[in-house]
Amino acid sequence: MTQISPYPHQVEIIEVGPRDGLQREATLISTDDKAALIAGLVAAGLRRIQVTSFVHPRLVPQMADAEELCRRLPQLPGVAYSGLALNLKGVERAEQAGLRHIDISVSASEAHSQRNANRFVADALTGFQEMVQQARAYGMSVRGGIQCAFGYQRPDDVSPETVLDIVRHHLDLGVDELALADSSGLANPRQVQALLAEIMPLAGDVPVILHLHDTRGMGLANVLAALQGGVRHFDTAFGGLGGCPFIDDATGNIATEDTAYMLHEMGIETGLDLAKLTAVSREYEERLGKKLPGKLYTLL
Amino acid sequence: MTQISPYPHQVEIIEVGPRDGLQREATLISTDDKAALIAGLVAAGLRRIQVTSFVHPRLVPQMADAEELCRRLPQLPGVAYSGLALNLKGVERAEQAGLRHIDISVSASEAHSQRNANRFVADALTGFQEMVQQARAYGMSVRGGIQCAFGYQRPDDVSPETVLDIVRHHLDLGVDELALADSSGLANPRQVQALLAEIMPLAGDVPVILHLHDTRGMGLANVLAALQGGVRHFDTAFGGLGGCPFIDDATGNIATEDTAYMLHEMGIETGLDLAKLTAVSREYEERLGKKLPGKLYTLL
Repeated sequence: MTQISPYPHQVEIIEVGPRDGLQREATLISTDDKAALIAGLVAAGLRRIQVTSFVHPRLVPQMADAEELCRRLPQLPGVAYSGLALNLKGVERAEQAGLRHIDISVSASEAHSQRNANRFVADALTGFQEMVQQARAYGMSVRGGIQCAFGYQRPDDVSPETVLDIVRHHLDLGVDELALADSSGLANPRQVQALLAEIMPLAGDVPVILHLHDTRGMGLANVLAALQGGVRHFDTAFGGLGGCPFIDDATGNIATEDTAYMLHEMGIETGLDLAKLTAVSREYEERLGKKLPGKLYTLL
Repeated sequence: MTQISPYPHQVEIIEVGPRDGLQREATLISTDDKAALIAGLVAAGLRRIQVTSFVHPRLVPQMADAEELCRRLPQLPGVAYSGLALNLKGVERAEQAGLRHIDISVSASEAHSQRNANRFVADALTGFQEMVQQARAYGMSVRGGIQCAFGYQRPDDVSPETVLDIVRHHLDLGVDELALADSSGLANPRQVQALLAEIMPLAGDVPVILHLHDTRGMGLANVLAALQGGVRHFDTAFGGLGGCPFIDDATGNIATEDTAYMLHEMGIETGLDLAKLTAVSREYEERLGKKLPGKLYTLL
């Protein structure tokens, strides 16, 4: 029997817990505690962390301290922090807060775009272009995302053609990276394989990041499918925290430590320290007063 | 990009919840309720159910009603019930209780065998042979299992050679099916692929069943790897209940409904009704008074 696909020696894990993980949580975490959390994640080996989003504090109170948090980030060589922006104002705020990496995106779902961002996809694409231009003028690197790339309420309510059109749009604008988000946790491995088979050749040398949620338990199966399809970069959140406040049931990102554990067991390096990661998750289980979705932190 | 592997049109799911799912639970379920549970699982489309184990009631109190339960099983065309036996006495009890299918196994881990079954693997293999002969004399079909096929306390504490030796032993005895159990929830997709690449050619026409636990969140990733490796039969438990009482942290089988959902989304039929399955899991969440590990039953 032949080896199905050569797996890589190394995969990059991008921690989104401080942003995607915490944004839905009602317990407000202080800026000091967030800075300590991020320092802990860096100590566990993470080199890329999405630290906050520049949104209106009324919409996401947990992110009201975005600027203050950016001032307190531990500045270490080789560690890159990014922030999420939804509009030009957000890009400006991120730049003024000192971030060099901006995460911006467009939803592939018309219904999600209108509910989440209150705008049509076509308008969002125009806004995206303005944000890219602004970020480039600032000299920031741009990660161009596609939300709901695998569906919004059902896997077939977003067509692969729509996703591919946005991919081409992002690439034409010269984004530094592409990010495909399974915002609703609907993706299945076959769908991941099929979509990547179209996208990877288009992306060429532009890295493709997969942002997965484990809503229906398929998170790591989708990681496997994506590895086989050539993806080498994954968003994860410590403890499996996370979820879009504007999508019902969109629970937990894939857990950083569970993902890293699977990769390590498969002989793929991530540079992460599982014991330190699980300690962070155990701390936040206590802090948030509830069991987190991740599995490994209760065992290690 | 090429399709990695042709997926099957259909997969058989074998429900082990009434046995593996309940055996570790402290809440004793009455025989009436177990019979109703099994009727509910049959109504949800399951055609093969492992209903009980014939062990000493002092060891597993939940299974003390094995004979009584077998008398109350709904007899329906096309539905096959099996029981687990650990020794000759168990095979005799199963036959006398009217079962036509017996599930017997040997551990590939010397340490696990001695702790779980209080015998060396070599002695267990001798005992296995006697059980096969007895079951055949009774005209029962035999599923020959291998516990800890992917490790006991670590994935590398059981060698693939040991597993292959037991596979050959089982096949030489003419078992009707092989079952590989990841008893400790240690298997990773690459390991599954590598072991199946050796076993599937040996097994030939003898079906290979994979029995997975989701202890570390890799359950459905391993299902995907196994599908790619040619496996078409999986043990699952409703709600993701389960775990060996003799292995620390060996939590939950892969959930029947989560597994079926992923397969359906991938275009693979199971014949199962997700709404009916999740209703069973919701009932048992209430009955057992705790959140079950499965994901889908909280959503559907």
